[in-house]
Amino acid sequence: HKTMAKEYASMRNIKFLLNEVHSVEDVLKYERFSAYDTESVEMLIDAAKQVGDVHMFPYLEEMDKHSVVYENESVKVHPKVKPLLQALAEGGWIAAKAPEEHGGMDLPTIVDVAAQFIFASANNGGMTFAGLTAGAANLILSFGTEKQKAEFLPDMFGGNWQGTMCLTEPDAGSSLGDISTSATPQEDGSYKIQGQKIFISGGDGDAFGNIVNMVIARVKGAPAGAKGISLFIVPQKRKDADGNLIANDVTTAGVFHKMGQKANPACHLIFGEKDDCMGYMVGQENRGLSHMFQMMNEARLSVGISGAGTASTAYYASLEYAKERPQGRRLNSKDMTPNQVPIIQHPDVRRMLLLQKAVVEGSLSLLFECGKLTDLSHVTEGEEKENNSLLLDLLIPIAKTYPTEMGIQSVSAGMQVLGGYGYCKDFSLEMLYRDVRIMTIYEGTTGIQSQDLLGRKVTMKGGKALMLLAQEISKTLNEAKTFDDLKGAGKQLGTELLAMQKVTGYLLDFAKAGDVERFLADANIFMEMASTIVIAWQWMKQAVIAKQKLVGGGLSTDEEHFYESKIHTFRYFYNYELPKTAGFATILLKAKDVTVMAEKEYIV
Amino acid sequence: HKTMAKEYASMRNIKFLLNEVHSVEDVLKYERFSAYDTESVEMLIDAAKQVGDVHMFPYLEEMDKHSVVYENESVKVHPKVKPLLQALAEGGWIAAKAPEEHGGMDLPTIVDVAAQFIFASANNGGMTFAGLTAGAANLILSFGTEKQKAEFLPDMFGGNWQGTMCLTEPDAGSSLGDISTSATPQEDGSYKIQGQKIFISGGDGDAFGNIVNMVIARVKGAPAGAKGISLFIVPQKRKDADGNLIANDVTTAGVFHKMGQKANPACHLIFGEKDDCMGYMVGQENRGLSHMFQMMNEARLSVGISGAGTASTAYYASLEYAKERPQGRRLNSKDMTPNQVPIIQHPDVRRMLLLQKAVVEGSLSLLFECGKLTDLSHVTEGEEKENNSLLLDLLIPIAKTYPTEMGIQSVSAGMQVLGGYGYCKDFSLEMLYRDVRIMTIYEGTTGIQSQDLLGRKVTMKGGKALMLLAQEISKTLNEAKTFDDLKGAGKQLGTELLAMQKVTGYLLDFAKAGDVERFLADANIFMEMASTIVIAWQWMKQAVIAKQKLVGGGLSTDEEHFYESKIHTFRYFYNYELPKTAGFATILLKAKDVTVMAEKEYIV
Repeated sequence: HKTMAKEYASMRNIKFLLNEVHSVEDVLKYERFSAYDTESVEMLIDAAKQVGDVHMFPYLEEMDKHSVVYENESVKVHPKVKPLLQALAEGGWIAAKAPEEHGGMDLPTIVDVAAQFIFASANNGGMTFAGLTAGAANLILSFGTEKQKAEFLPDMFGGNWQGTMCLTEPDAGSSLGDISTSATPQEDGSYKIQGQKIFISGGDGDAFGNIVNMVIARVKGAPAGAKGISLFIVPQKRKDADGNLIANDVTTAGVFHKMGQKANPACHLIFGEKDDCMGYMVGQENRGLSHMFQMMNEARLSVGISGAGTASTAYYASLEYAKERPQGRRLNSKDMTPNQVPIIQHPDVRRMLLLQKAVVEGSLSLLFECGKLTDLSHVTEGEEKENNSLLLDLLIPIAKTYPTEMGIQSVSAGMQVLGGYGYCKDFSLEMLYRDVRIMTIYEGTTGIQSQDLLGRKVTMKGGKALMLLAQEISKTLNEAKTFDDLKGAGKQLGTELLAMQKVTGYLLDFAKAGDVERFLADANIFMEMASTIVIAWQWMKQAVIAKQKLVGGGLSTDEEHFYESKIHTFRYFYNYELPKTAGFATILLKAKDVTVMAEKEYIV
Repeated sequence: HKTMAKEYASMRNIKFLLNEVHSVEDVLKYERFSAYDTESVEMLIDAAKQVGDVHMFPYLEEMDKHSVVYENESVKVHPKVKPLLQALAEGGWIAAKAPEEHGGMDLPTIVDVAAQFIFASANNGGMTFAGLTAGAANLILSFGTEKQKAEFLPDMFGGNWQGTMCLTEPDAGSSLGDISTSATPQEDGSYKIQGQKIFISGGDGDAFGNIVNMVIARVKGAPAGAKGISLFIVPQKRKDADGNLIANDVTTAGVFHKMGQKANPACHLIFGEKDDCMGYMVGQENRGLSHMFQMMNEARLSVGISGAGTASTAYYASLEYAKERPQGRRLNSKDMTPNQVPIIQHPDVRRMLLLQKAVVEGSLSLLFECGKLTDLSHVTEGEEKENNSLLLDLLIPIAKTYPTEMGIQSVSAGMQVLGGYGYCKDFSLEMLYRDVRIMTIYEGTTGIQSQDLLGRKVTMKGGKALMLLAQEISKTLNEAKTFDDLKGAGKQLGTELLAMQKVTGYLLDFAKAGDVERFLADANIFMEMASTIVIAWQWMKQAVIAKQKLVGGGLSTDEEHFYESKIHTFRYFYNYELPKTAGFATILLKAKDVTVMAEKEYIV
């Protein structure tokens, strides 16, 4: 028997973060978003929860169990994928951020983060289909011709056509400059495409009228490396002269058999086996990677949301179990006669639950921060705009990495809460444990994100982004000073921030000396340190608001309990998670050249 | 296509640890083991590797893919399970530690650790069958009557009958004192058994002539809690008056569908549904848990070996991939024209491989240490014997926990090395990632081990065990002083040891004040700290020997490389792993009461 948890995401927490901590009004006050007020935003996210409740969460485990099927060079997906995508499309969620003229809602990103989080925690695999389509459509919106927009966007935003991102090839994954898929110009301005792409999520499926592949390829004769890559729409079916959809020589050679994420096929696609695969260039020739990268912040934010969302699903599943499962007695009670207590009363179980809660809610707070910065970087101007963009660029690799790396740890803790049952298919934890593991790999591995953070983001504009972060953290620390209870933690965070600045300076010296390899060798550890500090900042923001509300008084019992729980989880984070940065700092200042390749390989 | 790695365990490393670091001669010199010398020990473990190569490793992935099948109230296992167990039995490995009179080899535990490690890394699921049978048989050997030994041991040691440990019930897992399975005395001295047991590995299977269940139950009228538990043999088939095997009313109600460990069925067994299930008491009435616990050190050691073994399988799979997979260029090379380099040249990949190697070889060294202490605690006398036992008891929860907790992290790093491929069934990493996850749950969760370490082992005999450990570490540090290169690390380890003693004192004050709950609340973090320090000690032991050999000179290129790699991995551990203890110490000295249940639950 399968025991589904009742909840997957806390609406109270989402509204707390959206309204109280990150003040969605700061975004809504701008002309561009004037169609919205806080009330309509609340209604929208309540509607998103409805979609999650009705069309997504009930099928989460079923889609894992009845995985995709590959037969006769095509893919069958779960029968509930189609209605799920229809429900998302009807709610306007696939086109959420598109302009009204293309049927979109022109929704602020900060609100879209809330909706994506709800969908990701309700059914992460199902959400991936919609997210990919939105991402592909937004690429066409940004760089496509009017003809391309008219041809592809309505069916994509309508949930009929599936979008994909075709980057990885058998010999080029993290090293995209090495792709070899080719594009040969034709007289009509289109291109003949030849090559193979692997791990293409949503690359095929009987639920879709067409697949709109966004493919990076080299135009014949293009420069080597990243500078010779162009972006193409290569649909599974193209229109013939009469406007009928005909096959476009895109073959599904197989699907990868994955450990998790079983709702969504990871396809191996072959383009142009019969030399009849047409592609349509999007944007400028040889600027494909750069166009793709302009969408990257959103894509990485989405993966971060998936990590936090999956961790949220797991959190509520273990919390429910911990409150219901009797086992053992309180450690201070030696008497065997009283009944066993629910395991939530055991400190070790509480520690694991608090880790889960701290990761879910700390991550989500950072994701909202990034959503808000995305909006502000669009609507503000001049230096303010630049600052918002810089801070966003700095935070994005962290917002992709912390929720996924710590999402894995958090789901694992959730499994441990259930003991042997957590390892079995009777509960959802084992599925979530398999699902969440991919997220530190795709859309740029943790290694790639960490090099991006240290190698590009920290160094850009002479380190200005890091300075802006320090200013923001200081602002929060000033607010925290109002409350005696928060002073100690505030001091702790200030100290950690200084330690991070010291470490950064130490590492930058290698870069200045031209030794990039040594500079970036421990980027992963730097990421662990920096992300823990950034999440500590987000917890301080939450604690400040919670304190204000508690001091303000006049709260219902439930509300009081909600804010007290925030303070409690904040204390968990500062007592159990933030202290780990001390170890990271030591490693970074000490590690020398252990991982840098020497004349001998030294690993046997 | 499935790409099998070529290797799963390093014989050179096993022999290094067995002969050079832990001097198996120290054990062999005792009368009890006089049948063996270092040469015959080497031959034996080479023979074990043969069994692994021929009968175990080739079927590892197949047994995952073609999992157990439950049909008509019985279980089918993979057809290669039977020949695998026959090969182990013929090699003498199921009876390895049994006395000669029962067909055993009277093998020292330190040598058995080597063999178990080879088998566990070759095919962890297959090894589990044999390990359970050996464990059950050893219980009968220690506490059973001559009649019981004669009836059950030959077929168990012969690999025909499968042994199981039946502890967990639907309402009693970590809290074994709460079991309710009952035993009603019969006139002939046997007992009628009634109750249910869950998660019973090897509890049924068509490869076995019989299943010998070791069941804990309560004799009617026994005292409540742990003091009223007795131990019984409850075979699946019992002998009738004519000596024929007939059904003993043990029903397999189902198997749990697990995330991994698919070769071995986790059964739900029902005893006495038709009131015709006979059990035979082993040892003394009401002493069942105590008898079981006398085998617990060995069982926990075995799980530690499984963790290290699975991590070893994963290590060699990722190492091989990293040496062969070209991707990207060295970070200091800006030129795109040269060929891509194998990913082992990237620092971040090297860091992950070094983590894997450090965990596998550090864990295995500790497991050998425990194997040796087991032997010495048997053959020595007086205070020496007591000291060996005390130190062993202290180290056992660590030897169960570090190789499994860090085994999970290590296999996860191995998956990350492979990127997207690591998540797919094309390589063994995803299977190993699923397999290794159970090991921090069964045979006592990490939470239980940590409470055992801090609550029982640290406090026993007025803290003598911890003092003995400190003495042993100091001994190693003295040896390290001979080498300038090791002095810095030696100082580092000395400082960490003092920090651990400080933390221990701080925590013990809560125990002295009678607040056991607070004392043990952070036992898990204490375990992380203590186990990292203990493994650092094991790496120092290895470094000392490697230095001696390198300084001694006259080595072949391969041997020189082997010892250099040891020093290199030792440096990794002291630069990347040991510094983390600083964070753990801070947490332990600071955490206060965050996880202790207050008047409100505080977790929503």
